Amino acid sequence: MDNSFRNMDSLPAHDKLRQAARQPFDLSSHEALEPTRLAGYIAHTASYRLLYSTQRVDDSTLDLLQELADQSGVIEQFKMMKQGEVMNHITGYASENRRVLHTACRDIFSAIPENPEATGQALRELDKLQNFLDDLEAGRLVNEQGENFTDLINIGIGGSDLGPRAVYLALKPFSRPNRRVSFISNIDPDDCAAVLKDLDLSRTLVAVVSKSGTTLETLTNEALVRKAFHGAGLEPSRHFVAVTGENSPMDNPDRYLRSFYMFDYISGRYSTSSMVGAVLLSFAIGSDNFRKFLEGANRIDRSAEERDIRKNVPLLLAVLGIWNRNFLNCETLAILPYSQALSRFVAHLQQCDMESNGKSINRRGGSLDYHTGPVIWGEPGTNGQHSFYQSLHQGTSVVPSEFIGFRRSQYGLDLIVDQTSSQEKLFANLLAQAIALATGAEDHNPNRSFPGNRPSSILLTDSLTPETMGELLAIYESKIAFQGFIWNINSFDQEGVQLGKLLADRLLNLMADSTHPDPVGRAFLKIASFRE
Amino acid sequence: MDNSFRNMDSLPAHDKLRQAARQPFDLSSHEALEPTRLAGYIAHTASYRLLYSTQRVDDSTLDLLQELADQSGVIEQFKMMKQGEVMNHITGYASENRRVLHTACRDIFSAIPENPEATGQALRELDKLQNFLDDLEAGRLVNEQGENFTDLINIGIGGSDLGPRAVYLALKPFSRPNRRVSFISNIDPDDCAAVLKDLDLSRTLVAVVSKSGTTLETLTNEALVRKAFHGAGLEPSRHFVAVTGENSPMDNPDRYLRSFYMFDYISGRYSTSSMVGAVLLSFAIGSDNFRKFLEGANRIDRSAEERDIRKNVPLLLAVLGIWNRNFLNCETLAILPYSQALSRFVAHLQQCDMESNGKSINRRGGSLDYHTGPVIWGEPGTNGQHSFYQSLHQGTSVVPSEFIGFRRSQYGLDLIVDQTSSQEKLFANLLAQAIALATGAEDHNPNRSFPGNRPSSILLTDSLTPETMGELLAIYESKIAFQGFIWNINSFDQEGVQLGKLLADRLLNLMADSTHPDPVGRAFLKIASFRE
Repeated sequence: MDNSFRNMDSLPAHDKLRQAARQPFDLSSHEALEPTRLAGYIAHTASYRLLYSTQRVDDSTLDLLQELADQSGVIEQFKMMKQGEVMNHITGYASENRRVLHTACRDIFSAIPENPEATGQALRELDKLQNFLDDLEAGRLVNEQGENFTDLINIGIGGSDLGPRAVYLALKPFSRPNRRVSFISNIDPDDCAAVLKDLDLSRTLVAVVSKSGTTLETLTNEALVRKAFHGAGLEPSRHFVAVTGENSPMDNPDRYLRSFYMFDYISGRYSTSSMVGAVLLSFAIGSDNFRKFLEGANRIDRSAEERDIRKNVPLLLAVLGIWNRNFLNCETLAILPYSQALSRFVAHLQQCDMESNGKSINRRGGSLDYHTGPVIWGEPGTNGQHSFYQSLHQGTSVVPSEFIGFRRSQYGLDLIVDQTSSQEKLFANLLAQAIALATGAEDHNPNRSFPGNRPSSILLTDSLTPETMGELLAIYESKIAFQGFIWNINSFDQEGVQLGKLLADRLLNLMADSTHPDPVGRAFLKIASFRE
Repeated sequence: MDNSFRNMDSLPAHDKLRQAARQPFDLSSHEALEPTRLAGYIAHTASYRLLYSTQRVDDSTLDLLQELADQSGVIEQFKMMKQGEVMNHITGYASENRRVLHTACRDIFSAIPENPEATGQALRELDKLQNFLDDLEAGRLVNEQGENFTDLINIGIGGSDLGPRAVYLALKPFSRPNRRVSFISNIDPDDCAAVLKDLDLSRTLVAVVSKSGTTLETLTNEALVRKAFHGAGLEPSRHFVAVTGENSPMDNPDRYLRSFYMFDYISGRYSTSSMVGAVLLSFAIGSDNFRKFLEGANRIDRSAEERDIRKNVPLLLAVLGIWNRNFLNCETLAILPYSQALSRFVAHLQQCDMESNGKSINRRGGSLDYHTGPVIWGEPGTNGQHSFYQSLHQGTSVVPSEFIGFRRSQYGLDLIVDQTSSQEKLFANLLAQAIALATGAEDHNPNRSFPGNRPSSILLTDSLTPETMGELLAIYESKIAFQGFIWNINSFDQEGVQLGKLLADRLLNLMADSTHPDPVGRAFLKIASFRE
């Protein structure tokens, strides 16, 4: 089946786009941003609208990007993915050979899910989780002193940390009273120490998250935390739950209150809406809110089947990204949420995008003659304006930007100063940056001149809630998958992390037993003075 | 005097380096990392060593980079800066026209400081701060109920937030009992709301930080926090201190317990060792520890005058960065601290570097034909390994990396699992990544092949303490200044942030009064549906 997958540069639209890229739309030209263009270049999906008049495209570019999307069969592949085809695969070589079904764990709202088996499994886990939460609520599950649990430590790394942490921080205002979550991820023992010193362990649950049940960092941190529980005279098996694959070494009722299951068809970076996110988020914000989060994500999964790029926000973001990366030669993408609640969302997207699409071979193992996933980076605005925006406006490299904004705040605390509220100031700054990057400004003083013509998009909705957070996550998950399909790469494996693991193991063996043969490793250890 | 400053591409070494860049050292070649090279490519400055055998340089490249440094007069310019020459300047055009003396506020340990006037001012402010801290300590300065203050909120943005916050997080284990600092920066009202809801305001001090006393975000957040104090029946003037320029609108004893002064010769992004960092850090970790921090920074400021790039860590980092950016055409730089305590240090460096060196004109207003500051990004390891490292190893763009590591942890909590401690695992992973990026690995499965030949450096010291944090900060501050001198740009202004501010003000005027003439702004506001 995947013999039909073609490299992007073999699609007829590719050469036309290269042609078009010789004279792309100039955002700094006189009246480039006239009202008709602004009003015409808006796409809607679910509760979001995407303003993209500040991208370097015109109608003919958009038509070509539509051709590219059509010729790549991106929507067909998206549907295949959701239905359970083996999309995590390299033909002709050993590969993970798995289905990709993160969408299934939120496909719980219609009578006929796209992949009934995976959705069935998701529903069973959600039921188990609901029982657990009910036991906590009813006081059937309490600590050694009969008290309720107030805290939960999530021990996980990468996909078992970044997405859940980003969403937890985003939805903190929706937290239930007396429910807090802390996170331990890094093998750095100081990460664990800093978290433990502020908690009353007697009232703390611990969720240990590892699909394989063998992740080095997670097991080591679990051992440290178990030791702290023992030190406090507490029995870990009364506090710890496992989030892991069925029958993994961690799937052990003697050591955990409960096991919630992860499945091999969801990779870590797409697992926020599975049990990986469900346990801690439901503990914190309640299962009703978590369900709304799933509902938002599912709304996007369904609407992202739209073929018209002008009516499909994630697909439009994907092809605009490809335009900037492959045709306008921009190496990075700044994601700039104007919301402090999204302070770690970019770190999650950095993982989700760069681990998915930082690849150099296609789905038959052939090397590619074009670039794939850019470097993803960014910080919330307006903070970033007082940091790296100097370089966005006047640096020598063009950095395309994706702004994310909300019309209303979460807490509703605000104040009118000089006739506008803080939220209005936040919002005005977002719009102003997109305009400034696009139009630039001339000045006789070269240090006060701005070249402009720097592309951006603005993704907007009313406010950041469980529903819109679910939508936002799924918009980016779909965007990333779409780009991978068009680039003809496998966005769902991560073989690039293996070599570092292998070499780290070798160095650790050397540390434990210096007779191991590894001259480079030994020389490095020596000059690093670790065990001179 | 600055007529002697020359563009980098007019220096004789430039063309030789371009020549050399046609066949740069190949890290993936057989035995590229042999022990003699590893041991030879180590530089020492203060307590740090820099391992750079994993950069794409050999002795002849290093000799050329030395020529480049010499020909640019980089060390002379560094000395001019420290002595108080006007280095923040564009000849022939209106510019800030200021001295650059962040080094002066830590030049307090020798009898004859390099700029006695600025150091004298720094010492006076440190004395004022010591009196304030003594009053807190002795119970002369207490809250309305006669209780000690336990918390401090720092309200500032950009340079008044990122550096102090990064250092506070890095040195948290050195905190005095019952002393905590929180930060409010973003104009997003949710930033303020989230901080306020967790604090007992009656025992909280507030430091408001703005050199001009007019920063939009900071004044707005101050107003929000003052309102919360009034709401709690507390008198703000008993809780608030100002960190601001002398005679700024904020320098007002009726509204603040104390004013600590900032001077126009220190820009925000270099202000961590001035009163901007001093107030909150001394409150948190005590003035003895803060003095050690200054001592570490001063140690680097003095040793960075060394002309030999092989004996000057910041200068070597600077020229290796220029090699990667201008000659090997790498657009970004990943900074990867293997220390959770440095979780926000990269965000600070992103500001310090990109706001300083994200410039396109030289110091006479001429445009440049070469690239300047790269995009700076990164997250702590090992976390990053489970996130974006896939792309570092197998992505289509080469990302040079700077690893930062410590031999010992801060808290000392650790556990031996499989014969090694967590700290050893952390350290082994750091080294393994540098080796893996350099050597790569071939495999018959193209998805398990690694091209290697990807450059990195490793910056190491024993542990993260006030002294070594001061050194680390100054290493990067000097590196950034060195690069600016060699690129012949003004690293000390930030005109690139002005256009966005101007346009935001215009939009806010429109929001307050819709009769203002601004068709683009009005159209944007309309489609963004803020006030439809």
